[in-house]
Amino acid sequence: MSQEPIMDVAHLGHLELLTPKPEESLRFFVDVLGMTESGRKADSVFLRAWDDYEHYSLQLTAAKTAALGHAAFRARSAQALERRVKAIENSGAGIGWVKDAYGHGPAYRFRDPDGHVIELYYETQWYQAPQALRPALKNQAQRYPARGVNVRRLDHFNCLAVDIQANREFFENYLGFRLTEQIVLDSGEEAGMWLTATNKSYDFAYTKEAHGVKGRFHHITYALDSREDVLRAADIFLEAGVPIETGPHKHAVQQTFFLYVFEPGGHRVEVANAGARLVLAPDWQPIRWSETERKKGQAWGLKTIETFHTHGTPPLPGQSPFENETVEQDDLSEKGIAS
Amino acid sequence: MSQEPIMDVAHLGHLELLTPKPEESLRFFVDVLGMTESGRKADSVFLRAWDDYEHYSLQLTAAKTAALGHAAFRARSAQALERRVKAIENSGAGIGWVKDAYGHGPAYRFRDPDGHVIELYYETQWYQAPQALRPALKNQAQRYPARGVNVRRLDHFNCLAVDIQANREFFENYLGFRLTEQIVLDSGEEAGMWLTATNKSYDFAYTKEAHGVKGRFHHITYALDSREDVLRAADIFLEAGVPIETGPHKHAVQQTFFLYVFEPGGHRVEVANAGARLVLAPDWQPIRWSETERKKGQAWGLKTIETFHTHGTPPLPGQSPFENETVEQDDLSEKGIAS
Amino acid sequence: MSQEPIMDVAHLGHLELLTPKPEESLRFFVDVLGMTESGRKADSVFLRAWDDYEHYSLQLTAAKTAALGHAAFRARSAQALERRVKAIENSGAGIGWVKDAYGHGPAYRFRDPDGHVIELYYETQWYQAPQALRPALKNQAQRYPARGVNVRRLDHFNCLAVDIQANREFFENYLGFRLTEQIVLDSGEEAGMWLTATNKSYDFAYTKEAHGVKGRFHHITYALDSREDVLRAADIFLEAGVPIETGPHKHAVQQTFFLYVFEPGGHRVEVANAGARLVLAPDWQPIRWSETERKKGQAWGLKTIETFHTHGTPPLPGQSPFENETVEQDDLSEKGIAS
Amino acid sequence: MSQEPIMDVAHLGHLELLTPKPEESLRFFVDVLGMTESGRKADSVFLRAWDDYEHYSLQLTAAKTAALGHAAFRARSAQALERRVKAIENSGAGIGWVKDAYGHGPAYRFRDPDGHVIELYYETQWYQAPQALRPALKNQAQRYPARGVNVRRLDHFNCLAVDIQANREFFENYLGFRLTEQIVLDSGEEAGMWLTATNKSYDFAYTKEAHGVKGRFHHITYALDSREDVLRAADIFLEAGVPIETGPHKHAVQQTFFLYVFEPGGHRVEVANAGARLVLAPDWQPIRWSETERKKGQAWGLKTIETFHTHGTPPLPGQSPFENETVEQDDLSEKGIAS
Repeated sequence: MSQEPIMDVAHLGHLELLTPKPEESLRFFVDVLGMTESGRKADSVFLRAWDDYEHYSLQLTAAKTAALGHAAFRARSAQALERRVKAIENSGAGIGWVKDAYGHGPAYRFRDPDGHVIELYYETQWYQAPQALRPALKNQAQRYPARGVNVRRLDHFNCLAVDIQANREFFENYLGFRLTEQIVLDSGEEAGMWLTATNKSYDFAYTKEAHGVKGRFHHITYALDSREDVLRAADIFLEAGVPIETGPHKHAVQQTFFLYVFEPGGHRVEVANAGARLVLAPDWQPIRWSETERKKGQAWGLKTIETFHTHGTPPLPGQSPFENETVEQDDLSEKGIAS
Repeated sequence: MSQEPIMDVAHLGHLELLTPKPEESLRFFVDVLGMTESGRKADSVFLRAWDDYEHYSLQLTAAKTAALGHAAFRARSAQALERRVKAIENSGAGIGWVKDAYGHGPAYRFRDPDGHVIELYYETQWYQAPQALRPALKNQAQRYPARGVNVRRLDHFNCLAVDIQANREFFENYLGFRLTEQIVLDSGEEAGMWLTATNKSYDFAYTKEAHGVKGRFHHITYALDSREDVLRAADIFLEAGVPIETGPHKHAVQQTFFLYVFEPGGHRVEVANAGARLVLAPDWQPIRWSETERKKGQAWGLKTIETFHTHGTPPLPGQSPFENETVEQDDLSEKGIAS
Repeated sequence: MSQEPIMDVAHLGHLELLTPKPEESLRFFVDVLGMTESGRKADSVFLRAWDDYEHYSLQLTAAKTAALGHAAFRARSAQALERRVKAIENSGAGIGWVKDAYGHGPAYRFRDPDGHVIELYYETQWYQAPQALRPALKNQAQRYPARGVNVRRLDHFNCLAVDIQANREFFENYLGFRLTEQIVLDSGEEAGMWLTATNKSYDFAYTKEAHGVKGRFHHITYALDSREDVLRAADIFLEAGVPIETGPHKHAVQQTFFLYVFEPGGHRVEVANAGARLVLAPDWQPIRWSETERKKGQAWGLKTIETFHTHGTPPLPGQSPFENETVEQDDLSEKGIAS
Repeated sequence: MSQEPIMDVAHLGHLELLTPKPEESLRFFVDVLGMTESGRKADSVFLRAWDDYEHYSLQLTAAKTAALGHAAFRARSAQALERRVKAIENSGAGIGWVKDAYGHGPAYRFRDPDGHVIELYYETQWYQAPQALRPALKNQAQRYPARGVNVRRLDHFNCLAVDIQANREFFENYLGFRLTEQIVLDSGEEAGMWLTATNKSYDFAYTKEAHGVKGRFHHITYALDSREDVLRAADIFLEAGVPIETGPHKHAVQQTFFLYVFEPGGHRVEVANAGARLVLAPDWQPIRWSETERKKGQAWGLKTIETFHTHGTPPLPGQSPFENETVEQDDLSEKGIAS
């Protein structure tokens, strides 16, 4: 008999994004994406989509440069959290406990092999909608906002990493994530990985960092109900003057119907139809895409746009559509972003 | 610390439906729903939707009357199967092992408290599409058929049960299903339950049997990608002369966008948008609908149609839109349907 | 050779609706439907949908009771207007010229045989969006609002009439409208008519007034782009507490995908997908629906709701979901509604 | 007073496309696009979409090379046909009457300034669906096929022309088409025109021929109901191995949601959402796009693909994705395509 799967991580909980333009970023997420502010603390504003059950799924923090603050996963139980913390401590990747987190209980903080800060927590604060935002149907967290893009819930995130294989093995071995799809170059080097802890076909992805800089972030994705919702989002982004990077179109990998834009702080933001596609098989065999297959472009033939391989946050000099936003490596270390 | 959740059931695998009109039922599922025949054995034809990863999700078996043959769930691992079988054996509900099942490994068969036959298995046969049905994208099980309603995958089923609470406790305690929503009458009696083993908000439902007859079946549901797909299905059913019972409309419970029709053998078949709504919380608190709340009808005000409360398979005399299809209790016992 | 069609009416221009709750009605049309206020004059507020090319398509006027103020059609040319005015004058239905209309040039006012006030005009004021509402694409009248239901443009209206045939002949003979569908009872009496001056399959409809009261209004309809947009509107109406009368569903007549709600003033408002269905044939043969055919209900089997046959504006005592809003016939005469 | 509009052309009726691969082209239009064969005569097969009211909208004719055979418009009345024929005869562009056309009455044939053959007719044969294809709703021409892409009706076509202005003036002056949008280069030369005789924002377009060859064809377009239908078409084309040229995406010009593919004979075929956008204004002011504006690409930023400017039928040596299909100018003259 093969080993039993580790089921200790329940789902992606939230992301903290650092932004050099906190007010403009906030306006983007609230007015254009249709999110709701659910709290403030120090330099951070907490935001939620209408179907997120927890208090928030996005923490926007004012900072000198755009970067991932941290990504947080919720454990399946208190015992599951204990087991994972013990495993991570043994791996040497641990940073330690955060006791006073906003909106959830104690969180264990650690670094993945590329230096991104990740948290794991179990206790959490369920969202209680104020009167004005109470939904008509009691099985829904919050009223449908009917404003802007109306994103439904946090879906996934994507980081860049210098060594994909090392990160894949870390998340598989210490956290129990399951690989559903990957890109493997002709050289045998892994160039992309999509992992899940749920029946969604991925909860996050890491793709190859081309510039050797660790700790960079690629994009955050909010889910919409249908492909038509994504097309309507494109109309709304166009009207709002939000720069569209690429899409709407359908990825060959994972078949996600995607649309990528840039928020004012410089982060790439995706809205995607996270529709009916689920991975139900407990023993799903990872789909491996070769270099040749990836060169065919997206599902319906769109060529992958160049900035998709180069732009991340923090942006690098000469590699970004936001040239004047790039930062020195010093700033990254100061913010504790890059190891 | 509270008890850890049992994660031993991976997902709903397939249903066996008995039909008194096997050829007409087959034509409905293939020509109208857009399913693919993937095998035959004895009196059964095996059918699949294009995104089902296993060999089949529906077994149509010729019989004297329409009824549920059995419902089958896939366990998460060989060890998980062992654990669940031991628990069920201890419950006294067990029937025994089926060794020679079509398309999957050994299955343990048992009865729920209402007498429906349920199976649990782990080993399974992944679908290998023949050349003509191979998809363009390698992360898809089968080519999109572009025929009829184009159902995507088996989503859930619904049985009737005389004692809802007894069945809920059975599935929770012995199989680890989680209750996400329920109906509780003013008397305190439970009248409906929606349970899940996945991140789908339900994998099956049981609703109150009004006539005291055990072992009856309410409907099978296949998932579509969008609400527009469900509306188009309504157009197609209308053109094909398939009787529409109710819908398209949106349930208040679970917010499913539904459409119910009758297949030629007499079974109620639903196509539904099983879209972006997921239950990700590992500690989801069940939504309880009161008698008063349910009387409001569906989400946008549609009144629940009377046949929805009375028609099931096997049909009962005087309670069915298919009057001439009703059967004697004798037939049910013969087929091993009713206990 | 048969007679050539009269092509003198270009399209429906706008409606004036009287409302006893002007502020609440305004909030409904702006906040929930997503319309834009484009002017005020005396007791009236003028409103527009984002794709209306004229200054407005709806005039909301404060009044003691809900009623149709008038409906206005735009002529195809100055000469066309002249021809139609001459014809109407000869018919004896004329009222006279309105010289100082808001947002358009001189309008000729007349009564249809049921007493509804209708206007015909040619000169009009094209909408010039202020900076904040300027669209990204120059072939669009106004920025997509991304607020509420986001209705696109005025589509059609529906009046009640005691004598359908008399009204049909009036609009055909004096204005050149073409009949595309109709309901004819077994008695030979006409019970519904759908007429068009465009390639839309209808620009307005009249249906049988069951209570013998002349001059009543049934509903105004704004167009949405897709059926999914109509479903989303239902979600939004539910959240906003707007009473849904019936739908979403598909009419058999004209195949309109409909959703009917009541605005605070008591008028029935429809949002509908006015999609790809066009009547292009210049010699279209009217579709005649019999009494038996209509009893089958809507396209997918929904039974027509009772209030649909009884409620209109002004509401009648005992015939309305808005009982306390009903008015005496005196009020109607005062407002010049009923002849 | 300005001159009254000529309203003599009712709508686009059908296209004749010549194909060097008649059997493969037929299979594409029937099996993939979901059209229905409604007749055969000599080397031609006649095809229709389910919402076309006439007998056919596409004539596929076997030939040595892919090219436009002719495009046909239906006049509004017998008198309108007479008037237009007289005007065209006076212009010197006339060819003469075709008396024995399939599926419609006498047609007057002429050449536009670029040499494309155009027909005008009035009498026509309405489609009478055989029993198996009769629709459930009597206001529909034919049963919804539920096969492949399910195109709804012929929407428009696009030719290439060496002198856009000359063609625009011809269609405006002699046929009464109205210009809704155009491209004008910085030099003042017109590079594209979109004309309509209906409330659709265009019934055909001509764009600049870059190679100085007259009489070439750019694409034929069938309408779908929604953008989701266009996306689904992309899925189906991908599965069927149909080469996708570009899209789905939204044009800035006319805001059409487009998808371009190549049928086996080499013609570019578009499926598009011809949804709710209508031009209702009888005095619509043409939208003029400058060279700079066009360089921005499509509505959401997609760059226009190079083959879109070069590939047409007949294909030219070195300018086509179908290199081995190119033809000598001799063939064009033989077929009477190029003047």
